[in-house]
Amino acid sequence: MKNTFGNSVSITVFGESHGPFIGAVLDGLAPGIEVDEDAVRHALTLRRPAGRISTARQEKDEYIIASGVFEGKTTGTPITIIIPNADTRSKDYKKTYGLARPGHADFSAYCKYHGFEDYRGGGHFSGRITASLVAAGAIARTALEKKGVYIGTHIKELAGIADRPFGEYREDIDELYSKVFPVLSAEAENAMKAEIEKAAFEGDSVGGMLETVIIGMPAGVGEPYFDSLESVISHMMFSVPGVKGVLFGAGTDFAVMRGSAANDAFGVKDGKICTLTNNNGGVNGGITNGAAVMFTTVVKPTPSIYKRQKTVDFLKSEETDISIEGRHDPCIVHRARIVADSLAAVALCDMLAQRYGTDYLAP
Amino acid sequence: MKNTFGNSVSITVFGESHGPFIGAVLDGLAPGIEVDEDAVRHALTLRRPAGRISTARQEKDEYIIASGVFEGKTTGTPITIIIPNADTRSKDYKKTYGLARPGHADFSAYCKYHGFEDYRGGGHFSGRITASLVAAGAIARTALEKKGVYIGTHIKELAGIADRPFGEYREDIDELYSKVFPVLSAEAENAMKAEIEKAAFEGDSVGGMLETVIIGMPAGVGEPYFDSLESVISHMMFSVPGVKGVLFGAGTDFAVMRGSAANDAFGVKDGKICTLTNNNGGVNGGITNGAAVMFTTVVKPTPSIYKRQKTVDFLKSEETDISIEGRHDPCIVHRARIVADSLAAVALCDMLAQRYGTDYLAP
Amino acid sequence: MKNTFGNSVSITVFGESHGPFIGAVLDGLAPGIEVDEDAVRHALTLRRPAGRISTARQEKDEYIIASGVFEGKTTGTPITIIIPNADTRSKDYKKTYGLARPGHADFSAYCKYHGFEDYRGGGHFSGRITASLVAAGAIARTALEKKGVYIGTHIKELAGIADRPFGEYREDIDELYSKVFPVLSAEAENAMKAEIEKAAFEGDSVGGMLETVIIGMPAGVGEPYFDSLESVISHMMFSVPGVKGVLFGAGTDFAVMRGSAANDAFGVKDGKICTLTNNNGGVNGGITNGAAVMFTTVVKPTPSIYKRQKTVDFLKSEETDISIEGRHDPCIVHRARIVADSLAAVALCDMLAQRYGTDYLAP
Amino acid sequence: MKNTFGNSVSITVFGESHGPFIGAVLDGLAPGIEVDEDAVRHALTLRRPAGRISTARQEKDEYIIASGVFEGKTTGTPITIIIPNADTRSKDYKKTYGLARPGHADFSAYCKYHGFEDYRGGGHFSGRITASLVAAGAIARTALEKKGVYIGTHIKELAGIADRPFGEYREDIDELYSKVFPVLSAEAENAMKAEIEKAAFEGDSVGGMLETVIIGMPAGVGEPYFDSLESVISHMMFSVPGVKGVLFGAGTDFAVMRGSAANDAFGVKDGKICTLTNNNGGVNGGITNGAAVMFTTVVKPTPSIYKRQKTVDFLKSEETDISIEGRHDPCIVHRARIVADSLAAVALCDMLAQRYGTDYLAP
Repeated sequence: MKNTFGNSVSITVFGESHGPFIGAVLDGLAPGIEVDEDAVRHALTLRRPAGRISTARQEKDEYIIASGVFEGKTTGTPITIIIPNADTRSKDYKKTYGLARPGHADFSAYCKYHGFEDYRGGGHFSGRITASLVAAGAIARTALEKKGVYIGTHIKELAGIADRPFGEYREDIDELYSKVFPVLSAEAENAMKAEIEKAAFEGDSVGGMLETVIIGMPAGVGEPYFDSLESVISHMMFSVPGVKGVLFGAGTDFAVMRGSAANDAFGVKDGKICTLTNNNGGVNGGITNGAAVMFTTVVKPTPSIYKRQKTVDFLKSEETDISIEGRHDPCIVHRARIVADSLAAVALCDMLAQRYGTDYLAP
Repeated sequence: MKNTFGNSVSITVFGESHGPFIGAVLDGLAPGIEVDEDAVRHALTLRRPAGRISTARQEKDEYIIASGVFEGKTTGTPITIIIPNADTRSKDYKKTYGLARPGHADFSAYCKYHGFEDYRGGGHFSGRITASLVAAGAIARTALEKKGVYIGTHIKELAGIADRPFGEYREDIDELYSKVFPVLSAEAENAMKAEIEKAAFEGDSVGGMLETVIIGMPAGVGEPYFDSLESVISHMMFSVPGVKGVLFGAGTDFAVMRGSAANDAFGVKDGKICTLTNNNGGVNGGITNGAAVMFTTVVKPTPSIYKRQKTVDFLKSEETDISIEGRHDPCIVHRARIVADSLAAVALCDMLAQRYGTDYLAP
Repeated sequence: MKNTFGNSVSITVFGESHGPFIGAVLDGLAPGIEVDEDAVRHALTLRRPAGRISTARQEKDEYIIASGVFEGKTTGTPITIIIPNADTRSKDYKKTYGLARPGHADFSAYCKYHGFEDYRGGGHFSGRITASLVAAGAIARTALEKKGVYIGTHIKELAGIADRPFGEYREDIDELYSKVFPVLSAEAENAMKAEIEKAAFEGDSVGGMLETVIIGMPAGVGEPYFDSLESVISHMMFSVPGVKGVLFGAGTDFAVMRGSAANDAFGVKDGKICTLTNNNGGVNGGITNGAAVMFTTVVKPTPSIYKRQKTVDFLKSEETDISIEGRHDPCIVHRARIVADSLAAVALCDMLAQRYGTDYLAP
Repeated sequence: MKNTFGNSVSITVFGESHGPFIGAVLDGLAPGIEVDEDAVRHALTLRRPAGRISTARQEKDEYIIASGVFEGKTTGTPITIIIPNADTRSKDYKKTYGLARPGHADFSAYCKYHGFEDYRGGGHFSGRITASLVAAGAIARTALEKKGVYIGTHIKELAGIADRPFGEYREDIDELYSKVFPVLSAEAENAMKAEIEKAAFEGDSVGGMLETVIIGMPAGVGEPYFDSLESVISHMMFSVPGVKGVLFGAGTDFAVMRGSAANDAFGVKDGKICTLTNNNGGVNGGITNGAAVMFTTVVKPTPSIYKRQKTVDFLKSEETDISIEGRHDPCIVHRARIVADSLAAVALCDMLAQRYGTDYLAP
């Protein structure tokens, strides 16, 4: 399938940047889950561009829950969220069709869709599309929290500047959830923002890495082959626009570690078996071991930059150059955070519902 | 689904390390593809342990093509390969059941299968299971090569030692395919092997990174969401035992790059549109752009080590320690190579068959 | 997955009878297909209740194409159609909650959704939901016709009255498509309508059988196991509300036929191999043989009737009785026709795209 | 996917009639289920040809459980059953390649596989392939019985002769399970066998209908759209070779019933809500209502007959005729019974595991 993923709980995404609506269908969530509309709005706020470090495009993100919620609770049938596209300036984009924006999908989309793609504002490839995933994810996230599963993501690194590592998970998760720019160290936050503004001033953009922690996942979830927890999570993460890498636990450090250092010894704490370290990111053999699930997501620098770049007009097969005008973000790492969290939430709901049944997430 | 992955072309894996057979079903491959049994045997050789840097377990890997091949060619119906387990010493493993080997799936499998799992030699989690994936992948790989799609993987880095980067892709691919230890620089190869032997001598193990290049993929393959080429490849790669990270193109470097450096400018060469660099690893917006597909896979150090480690007996919930006896590898990075290549080959066959139809890979 | 079906081309349905919107997402259709909005409107007309033989509920079915169509043509990304629910009288239904309407899903839905289901007007189970499937199916149908694949369905039998058999397929298909009450014999049509009115007058309802013919399908489509053409079509047909049976070719007659009569002999006509009869409904071993695909769908009588029926209040576990007030159809067989055609069209698009690639249906 | 079906519990089938092995992979069954090998052998006996009413081909069906069972219990990993093909006489079939046997898949397979199919003995299309499905189904069936879910099938009708209807379900199920020719009335059994022998004597074959009852399914299983219980069961049933129709509950009778007669009134018995009749076959709106699930499967007459038939040589596009020599059944209705039961058992395991989690079927 193409724009749908999941088994017991699935998500479908649709829409184009400049069409009438974008939207998502979240199917298979248990009935009776309270839909916290404040949480949905808050999640949308976390994705929305804000301030000098983001695009000037201002969408209100006034979403409509078109189905699947009745008297404030999930019905168990598909939850559909549609968001009208309001602030679209289609004429900005028309003149650049044929000019492949480097780092963007313009050319690969043309090879796939033969020129019939809606090219306005990135069409179906626009980061804008992720707004409905975020709204759907907010509902999934609320359901998980009722079961003691919490997800939090910070910017681990941006333009070479590192945030402090996670400390007390639950506290950090709460703090990050409250912040539009999800960094744990105030110092790192300032330095990162300075880098973004500097890049923006130079007509350029920056990339970074997100680190996600998931606490409360029971041990024994995931499959040894093909639907390993890592496979499913990475499948989702590589659907977040701009993501180019997914690393679990110690990630690239594994390449320089010895087995004796990389292995997580087991111990017993308060009568419960647990790992004493967490290099494996909470997953052994594709299956959760009860430790926090931890993974890092690499986000490339926003491809839209004002700087002049070499490119081609693929309609004419001619070399030329391009300076991307219009509104765009010098950094999407912080905005990608809530998209990553949302898709992770849906993936976790799916894995839990497969493991424990469709009513597991019910109240 | 659990042990099956793919749509138009799919793969199913089954078997336990010490059961009578392991095997794989490769379904959906076009009819009429010549099955090169030498290629299957060669691929199995690349996976088989060899010399001082591998386990002493010697399997002959005498495979049987149980279905789907008739008069030397694929029929279009499921290709099943079964491999008898010959050299099994089950008594080695029985006494350790309950002792969670750190870094292994023993405990997480117990949480999932409640003690009914076949624990002998890692059971369904054993690297042994991958032999049938390799045999199936060899057939997929042959089919791809007939269409001009070639896959090659080298050890990019091992215990801190880096191989030289890819040069002429096609030549390097051929060279790597001929080597049990797939490294391009002879100097790096010697240094890596020395590190493995040193770790082995100390009862320890090492990890590393594999880098894969795929040439010949047409532009326009992959989906914008959920079945992005990156999603599908990473889904497969995280099914290779020991893999903890997947990075496309510039990978973690994206986190420190500016957009102006990360973007791949387009140009025209010999009348064909192409990218002038390949930081995006051949994929824009989830869809191939015609450049080589490039990704890096992080392989953790073999968890089985002779060194004494802290652990628990999960049947008794008691802390204890463990020294893993029996036969095991101080490094699986080189052996993981052909498993990664094989699963990548199956994933590519699937994506091509979805895009161009089930007969695309037919002769 | 739950409300999504298909592989290369898939359909997702969402919405409740009395929610703000119903809708469907049709994904995977090739780019560049002209969307004939007249065809969409016409298909919706065929589903809409009309005259004395239908419910008094009047929906305008003003659909919005929310995504996937640009400048009148498919883009290749998900096509979403949403239809606002306008004429809803929610208070009609509230008072009957707990009273299981016999033949309806009220009680089974309660067992599944635990009382959180949107019970108004049948909620997600309402025939109303099929309007968006019909709109989506109209687009699929147009795409098929461009490739020479035509679908037509008549009421084969209703309340014991039989229509004439199919004659010249293409002519009959065109005629049926133009008729709200799809019967080929004017005499049969009058008799059927008389039966419906009679049942309506008695506060009752009638059932029937639809027969579908599909011409132009190439030979060699379908799979021997699990995705046989019959499996896929029946999977879809049993999603049409009220369908209780699917029969291919000679159907129940096979039970009394000898092999010598049931087998379709092969011959050569105009240099082309074909079957001389078509008892197998165009399918041998799950795969099309080039003859017309023919199947019969059994539609049960509308469960909503005015006549008093015994039932229970499942909230109180008490026996009681019920007379279903409000607006309902004495017969849905004729309206089910276009739903069946629409889902068949989507299934065929999927099977063709899997077989011949995603661009097969492109112009 | 092609030769694989299911979500939480799935089945994959492979093999050709005259290849070395046939087999099936049953994945996702809960760990800890006792595997009753007597039940597997018994089920294989029910499928095996026997006496004058069956083919003379005698297979021992010596199956090997290649994986997924350890110390007599399921492990939770894929259960693979392989059955060697012993009694194959390949030369019988070679000379007929190109001659399309009417009613068989020879020609449609040729259109799909372009002449690369293994044509010997029907290859992948042979009824022989179903032996491994039966073995796998026997394990699924045992698991269901532990949860109080029982499946039984009788020949409802054969060559115009009707069996008596089901009486006490559980007793009838047990009786049918003990019989190779599953008919409840001794009189009907004799008459049916006489018809089969008569057809055999005339070089012909007969068809019939199977009726299946499933008791013990909890209410609330199935989905409103696309994965309705009817959709899933029919998808499976149409994978049984020779099946051309699937009808739920009253089946074709719905076409002549009034709603007042077709609707199943609800009542309360022993404090439990139930339907007073069962015209809907235990399913309302795609979801079980707690009544017995009942469906009828139409099986066409065996296409292999000795009588001379008109056909073509599709390699030469020439008309000719054919008399099918070799060993074949004058009737497969009774042998199809256990195949239908087996696939139904797998489908039910899948639906229950999706609904209640992967451990639901565990002891």
